[in-house]
Amino acid sequence: MQFFSKKNTITHFSADMKSVYTIEPGETVVVETHDCYGGQIADESVLRPDIDLSIMNQATGPFYVNGVKAGDILVVEILDIELDPSGVMVMSKGLGVLGDLVDEPSTKIVPVKDGRILFGDGLIFPVAPMIGVIGVAPRKGSVHCAVPGDHGGNMDTKDIRAGSRIYFPVFQEGGLFALGDLHASMGDGEMNGTGVEIGGKVKMKVDKREGCLLSVPVVETKDAFMFISSAETLEAAVQRGAGIVVEHLQNALALEFGEAYRLLTMLCDVKISQVVNKLVTIRVEVPKSLLFKLFG
Amino acid sequence: MQFFSKKNTITHFSADMKSVYTIEPGETVVVETHDCYGGQIADESVLRPDIDLSIMNQATGPFYVNGVKAGDILVVEILDIELDPSGVMVMSKGLGVLGDLVDEPSTKIVPVKDGRILFGDGLIFPVAPMIGVIGVAPRKGSVHCAVPGDHGGNMDTKDIRAGSRIYFPVFQEGGLFALGDLHASMGDGEMNGTGVEIGGKVKMKVDKREGCLLSVPVVETKDAFMFISSAETLEAAVQRGAGIVVEHLQNALALEFGEAYRLLTMLCDVKISQVVNKLVTIRVEVPKSLLFKLFG
Repeated sequence: MQFFSKKNTITHFSADMKSVYTIEPGETVVVETHDCYGGQIADESVLRPDIDLSIMNQATGPFYVNGVKAGDILVVEILDIELDPSGVMVMSKGLGVLGDLVDEPSTKIVPVKDGRILFGDGLIFPVAPMIGVIGVAPRKGSVHCAVPGDHGGNMDTKDIRAGSRIYFPVFQEGGLFALGDLHASMGDGEMNGTGVEIGGKVKMKVDKREGCLLSVPVVETKDAFMFISSAETLEAAVQRGAGIVVEHLQNALALEFGEAYRLLTMLCDVKISQVVNKLVTIRVEVPKSLLFKLFG
Repeated sequence: MQFFSKKNTITHFSADMKSVYTIEPGETVVVETHDCYGGQIADESVLRPDIDLSIMNQATGPFYVNGVKAGDILVVEILDIELDPSGVMVMSKGLGVLGDLVDEPSTKIVPVKDGRILFGDGLIFPVAPMIGVIGVAPRKGSVHCAVPGDHGGNMDTKDIRAGSRIYFPVFQEGGLFALGDLHASMGDGEMNGTGVEIGGKVKMKVDKREGCLLSVPVVETKDAFMFISSAETLEAAVQRGAGIVVEHLQNALALEFGEAYRLLTMLCDVKISQVVNKLVTIRVEVPKSLLFKLFG
């Protein structure tokens, strides 16, 4: 099994970026990733104002997947996420939804051991490992790794975890995917601006699918397909996600608009992924009891 | 067990409303409710533009709970929700997040039988009964039953279902609670503006708690406490809910602000309840692994 180290990373997902690694469709690989600060925080004396933000959320890659063309779908199945032995949580004035209430910047190192997060003061919680940044080269231009979009990127969606499969629309030859920004745990919303930020190794199977259409990334879990939508406000992201799902239901199940809209409101949950990045992200969850297969 | 019919309802939760029913703390009762249209939709020929909206979301009550005072907490445990044999879904231009795409108004009657929703065209789904409107008299003024707030009201939160317990801050003597607007099923967001709207009977145990402080309704499920926050935008509702939860965690667990803020981002999900009422509603879910009891 090929192992790819974190020495090659990108700070932007760009339409014209050059791949550094090549893999075959169907291949299972292990990819090492930095924490979102690129390892800049060695101890609790390093505060957020000291950090070089230009390299935030860097992602290991890009990977060229042989035979993948624009218009295909890249399918990434997350098999396992192995976390480093400690994570970090920073806080700083203005960070997160209550950022105005933060006085002094502070950094907390959080040990992670035997699948548990040792928060301190007797507070111990199970890890819930997830991938914050994962994406492909966008249709055009260049998107910083801290920003989400239809190419993926910093979606901060906690269902992107072991056992999930992610479908990306492919915009450039080879797909050119990259990933990073693991969290040992994060709640929906990422309300203070960070999860338990951590590096690690991700075992994943990468494959392709041809002849199907998708406009945004979709996460498949055991029970649902989640359509990911990012926009400037939650309201706009919800509206966009709802429109994409209704159109998908119409096509997949041969439904009139009205019937698909009713099934959306009756059975589909819109969930917040994150409210703290430059664009915010929601996911519309379509249960498999309604949509058995993503494509007909 | 006392049974209370739907013949007495309110269209507004008002600070000065008069109770029509009286019960004792600790009593289990059955309350009959209209659907959100007050039974105005007899068949599919009745469209939303034909409906008297002033009586939308009417709630059965108000109930005076003996011995309950302002400053107490009213605890309502939902034991069972029995649904009427059919629900209704209306659609109309402008309704819901994709309302601009709706051309003609339409009404769909949806039979509900043996715990299943018979949507039509072979589509059958299990019911997921919930209460859309439930609340107490507000601190001041008068709030239409179609609007949510700190008194409860039209929260459209699908975790308000059998097996859940809801804690309300009490603003007026006797609490003066009322409820209505059941749904046979609704996804988080209530994205087209309605669930499967239906009448029914709710079996519930009503009790009180003294000497504890709460500023918003809280829903307790098997695994979590959910703090409900409504505001003009999702962003504002999230910020307000996060602030309330952090303060609660600080008090309940004797934590500094920073530690509570970190635990919020790491473990608590912010979830969308509804995006279609005059104020939108979110809930911040605090897992019991973090907060074992709501009050110390």
